Amino acid sequence: MSAASQARRRRSAEQLEIVAFERGEHTSYAACGLPYFVAGLIPEAERLVARSPEQHRAAGIVVHLRHEVVAIDTTARRVRVRDLDAGVERDEPYDELVVATGSVPLRPPLPGVDAAGVFGIQTIADGVAIDDWLRDRAPRRAVVVGGGYIGLELAEAMQHRGITTALVEQLPQPMATLDPDMGALVADAIAAIGIELHLGTGVVGFETDDTGRVRAVTTAAGELPAEVVVLGLGVRPNTTLAAAAGLPLGVRDGIVVDDRMHTPVDGVWAAGDCVVSRHRVSGDPVVIALGTHANKQGRVLGTNVTGGDLRFPGVIGTAVTRICEYEVARTGLTEREAAAAGIDAVAATIEGSTRSSYYPGAEAITVKCVVARGTGRLLGAQIVGREGAAKRIDVLAAAIWNEMTADDFSQLDLGYAPPFSPVWDPVLIAARKAADAA
Amino acid sequence: MSAASQARRRRSAEQLEIVAFERGEHTSYAACGLPYFVAGLIPEAERLVARSPEQHRAAGIVVHLRHEVVAIDTTARRVRVRDLDAGVERDEPYDELVVATGSVPLRPPLPGVDAAGVFGIQTIADGVAIDDWLRDRAPRRAVVVGGGYIGLELAEAMQHRGITTALVEQLPQPMATLDPDMGALVADAIAAIGIELHLGTGVVGFETDDTGRVRAVTTAAGELPAEVVVLGLGVRPNTTLAAAAGLPLGVRDGIVVDDRMHTPVDGVWAAGDCVVSRHRVSGDPVVIALGTHANKQGRVLGTNVTGGDLRFPGVIGTAVTRICEYEVARTGLTEREAAAAGIDAVAATIEGSTRSSYYPGAEAITVKCVVARGTGRLLGAQIVGREGAAKRIDVLAAAIWNEMTADDFSQLDLGYAPPFSPVWDPVLIAARKAADAA
Repeated sequence: MSAASQARRRRSAEQLEIVAFERGEHTSYAACGLPYFVAGLIPEAERLVARSPEQHRAAGIVVHLRHEVVAIDTTARRVRVRDLDAGVERDEPYDELVVATGSVPLRPPLPGVDAAGVFGIQTIADGVAIDDWLRDRAPRRAVVVGGGYIGLELAEAMQHRGITTALVEQLPQPMATLDPDMGALVADAIAAIGIELHLGTGVVGFETDDTGRVRAVTTAAGELPAEVVVLGLGVRPNTTLAAAAGLPLGVRDGIVVDDRMHTPVDGVWAAGDCVVSRHRVSGDPVVIALGTHANKQGRVLGTNVTGGDLRFPGVIGTAVTRICEYEVARTGLTEREAAAAGIDAVAATIEGSTRSSYYPGAEAITVKCVVARGTGRLLGAQIVGREGAAKRIDVLAAAIWNEMTADDFSQLDLGYAPPFSPVWDPVLIAARKAADAA
Repeated sequence: MSAASQARRRRSAEQLEIVAFERGEHTSYAACGLPYFVAGLIPEAERLVARSPEQHRAAGIVVHLRHEVVAIDTTARRVRVRDLDAGVERDEPYDELVVATGSVPLRPPLPGVDAAGVFGIQTIADGVAIDDWLRDRAPRRAVVVGGGYIGLELAEAMQHRGITTALVEQLPQPMATLDPDMGALVADAIAAIGIELHLGTGVVGFETDDTGRVRAVTTAAGELPAEVVVLGLGVRPNTTLAAAAGLPLGVRDGIVVDDRMHTPVDGVWAAGDCVVSRHRVSGDPVVIALGTHANKQGRVLGTNVTGGDLRFPGVIGTAVTRICEYEVARTGLTEREAAAAGIDAVAATIEGSTRSSYYPGAEAITVKCVVARGTGRLLGAQIVGREGAAKRIDVLAAAIWNEMTADDFSQLDLGYAPPFSPVWDPVLIAARKAADAA
């Protein structure tokens, strides 16, 4: 809908008809806010809606809810749409088509995965279903499957609702988007807030009671009782429709687009979680499902589809999250990712303080910088700490984006006052140490 | 002492003798922490000492406290030192001289300025003197003179101690380092926390009672009762000694140095609040008294004086401060500064939210971006907001440092999660709007 809105800003309803089909019941909602709704921090799920269908319609965008596009004919330039409520299908012609089918949550085909009480989370309906379950059943034990961002946020949410929570992760560390040493700090943080952490533990299935409700999660290491289970295993691009239409798919089955968000097929554009982006540091194609990218891509697409010329410059994998009082952030490449990209990298890690050490509320922060050996170019950074830690990733992201060396970075004129930073901000100290190691 | 420490890291005591003369009683203390000591947030003033004379001595640096250098002979390569306690003077030879005389607080020669109860604040002794006065006299009314960073921090400190506080500023806005529109927001914040603000009001003198203690501040607009007065008028480079020695002074009487921190006089180096730096955006020479610059310059100097080759890359005027729950930040050039530098600039200001609007604790933030007309290059930014606002200046500082356009900046991959930011961070929205205006 970002693309539609941007197109509408540039072309009036007289100039351009814009029709959107959505198989769900909402438009423009913040899926990333769902864990906080489940946690009870946001009283109404509707608050996550940034722009309702009515608002879009008022702006001159035709929105059909509960309408699923089931086929695309790129030669005839038409789509086949099913009205889910009426149960009928019709064809709709287009001049330009925008594919913004997003992503679907990973849901392993394990025994019992469809039992009552086992939830995925992607839509507002999912969030409401979990919330209803928690209210109705008052479960005492929860298991969250998956130790990435969404899994951690859901585990915090369960914990926040007063439910004893276990987190199960197949890999030997939570937050596999961090290097193992930083992931270990996250594991410590999870344990410190009382979440039971089972690492290196695969889920085998889900046990149910005689009413069909989930009662336990079976893992390679034994059974974990649970009256509610949430799957936080991440997402994959929702591109079955695109593939069937002959749109070329790339890495992780994402839709291939150029930097104008156009696919290789004439008149077909795509943006959001379903497309492949370029990682500016490694140069590799990546699929990163994140609202920021989707919004920026939508703006680029909406401009270009109406005759403008904007470029999506790519991503560098910046991400932040909070788990209770702990903050976690990353940008660029980890050591592991640098190695996988064939880049000779070195890293340095420092422990510092979010404020001047003498100032009340100074909190611990660990910063890791990854730099290219020889040139000292900043490749990536990771942060784990308490309040005030995570958003420090932004200045590192800006530096990596601009291809700064760690040495030049360490000279930056950053904001300093005792309530905000030590004289040498921890990010500068980490860069300094990494520069020396390079 | 940063320079001395860096030199010592690079050269052993056998290789290089390092002697420091300090007329006070402390080394390496955080003057910027003094307002927080006065506020009662830091229990002991000694906590502001980052490295004591004993620690420096243990590292092999000879430190003479209560020793004032009263003359420099750059031809004979010696300094004249007065032992303040013994009252005797002696000559000390040098091979390389480092001038790090810092700054002196501005203290207008007004009637009554030397009365008991009228304080300046620069040294730990100053902070202790104010604290003692507040404890002993329990004043009910304070006047702080000066509406810049230090004045605001002191006004907050007095207010925090439960003293009814008035702030007097000669200019029509507080925080003259901001543009008037942003300064007005700061004025609102000051008023909101109950500090009485007198703008456009010059101080004429100080009234005393019959014991010689201050009892009021006389201003152009009338008399303000005060049992304690703190002068927070900022500082000027302490370069009388340097001038007498024939070192060339530049803007605001700062010592002229090259980017290796060497003065034009052979064997004489200088760093810290007493030197002139180069502003990377305007290209102009500036004097900015800030611990971050002093530390970085000290490191550069200490490296070069021991045969290395580092460059101080200049400054862009980044600064942050907090006044109770309000945060203020700036970097680069204001609209006013851009105009003064002869740069054709436009600005855009937006009101946003520090977190996703639906997330608890989302606070208001106002961001102003200044960009060059035509090119759209980012020249400066200003932020006023609540918790989480100020340190956002860093990503803007990194962008300005790298000469990014506002347009490119608005595409940056910054950290996003609902507890930390809306999908479009307010800094990106401000840059976007400024890019459109350019």
